[in-house]
Amino acid sequence: MKNIQSVVFDLYGTLYDVQSVSTACEEAFPNMGDTIATLWRQKQLEYTWLRSLMDRYVNFENATEDALNYACGYLGLKLDATLHRSLSDAYLRLQPHSDTPDALRRLHDAALPLGIISNGSTASISQVVENSGLGWAFDQLISVESVQVFKPHSKVYALAETRMGLPRENILFVSSNAWDATAAAHFGFPVCWVNRRNSVFDEMGAQPTYTVSHLEALTDMLLEQRDALHTA
Amino acid sequence: MKNIQSVVFDLYGTLYDVQSVSTACEEAFPNMGDTIATLWRQKQLEYTWLRSLMDRYVNFENATEDALNYACGYLGLKLDATLHRSLSDAYLRLQPHSDTPDALRRLHDAALPLGIISNGSTASISQVVENSGLGWAFDQLISVESVQVFKPHSKVYALAETRMGLPRENILFVSSNAWDATAAAHFGFPVCWVNRRNSVFDEMGAQPTYTVSHLEALTDMLLEQRDALHTA
Repeated sequence: MKNIQSVVFDLYGTLYDVQSVSTACEEAFPNMGDTIATLWRQKQLEYTWLRSLMDRYVNFENATEDALNYACGYLGLKLDATLHRSLSDAYLRLQPHSDTPDALRRLHDAALPLGIISNGSTASISQVVENSGLGWAFDQLISVESVQVFKPHSKVYALAETRMGLPRENILFVSSNAWDATAAAHFGFPVCWVNRRNSVFDEMGAQPTYTVSHLEALTDMLLEQRDALHTA
Repeated sequence: MKNIQSVVFDLYGTLYDVQSVSTACEEAFPNMGDTIATLWRQKQLEYTWLRSLMDRYVNFENATEDALNYACGYLGLKLDATLHRSLSDAYLRLQPHSDTPDALRRLHDAALPLGIISNGSTASISQVVENSGLGWAFDQLISVESVQVFKPHSKVYALAETRMGLPRENILFVSSNAWDATAAAHFGFPVCWVNRRNSVFDEMGAQPTYTVSHLEALTDMLLEQRDALHTA
């Protein structure tokens, strides 16, 4: 990792736990929280991919709301406007994964410029980050909004170079989403796949440069490398 | 349906039953046939969408083989090269849905030009159709191969106009895949969604013109309309 001068993280699923909306879903529909959250997330992703391919971009919040409608319709659950609003808002109060705050603190203390690059709108990314009290960590919050297409289109990954002011080979791209890590690797970033669930990587012609099971391992690797450089 | 002069069908899931590969999967891995077939199909679709967005097209057979590797890896099932080949080949011997042969016969007898438009390669579409003995039905077998991108990119739907020699408003597009029907509706076809499983439609800003629960109902509608025109 000797050429890494900056780290850019995916938000949904990587720094923040998308399954944390299941608490709000469970309150609304007892015994269905996990089922709703899983189907909702799957459809949310599908709608971002399909809308990008159809050239029918809407912002991520709209895709998320549409996916919630689908999930509840599919599961036969009645969703009134108030409940729809309150469940959708749960995506603005996602919980960070337990390993996120400490990893960000250590990397920030080491003066490594950090960013987020996400499908979310600018407003939405800011709210998730501020609501979790982690706003201090990031130099750049990068939304797909300016290119009006979702990941894994290469236009999105190109934003990281512009905004971080570095060429791709000096930016470590970190994602728990195998498809996102695949696209980032095809784009030319060094890539770290955070595989918290001991899953298998996707089969789309690229592999991550590094695989870790949690962010602490990634932080250790990065900081050891920097210490080695500084004492060399 | 008075302006319909031709019918173009989706292949995988619409005329042919993608779940029919579960028989071969079940023989290879007892009690896992349906699970493998479902995950395999889900990943196959994801890989076509994601590869299209990454501008990393491979043909459908390759995406299908990659998705099979993923599905078996995810489920912890050992897949040697021989078994991988024989399961992949099951996608070339898909069974038509039970309502497919009669619907094609009736539309063909009514001299309505019929086509297939599919993510499959030209060779693959031909094999599926020939293996099922339904080759007589189609005027055009249209593959995405010539545009090197998968559905739901609009370049794919545009092929139907060129190959059928008709403007989109005169071509009825028929699909069981709600995302495919959505994209076709956005493109401007009249669209029939074949909802055999009493499911809910996708929420991506377009609705099908017609919804039927099986192809017989669609055929009845089309032929009644033609009879009415001829006797008017």
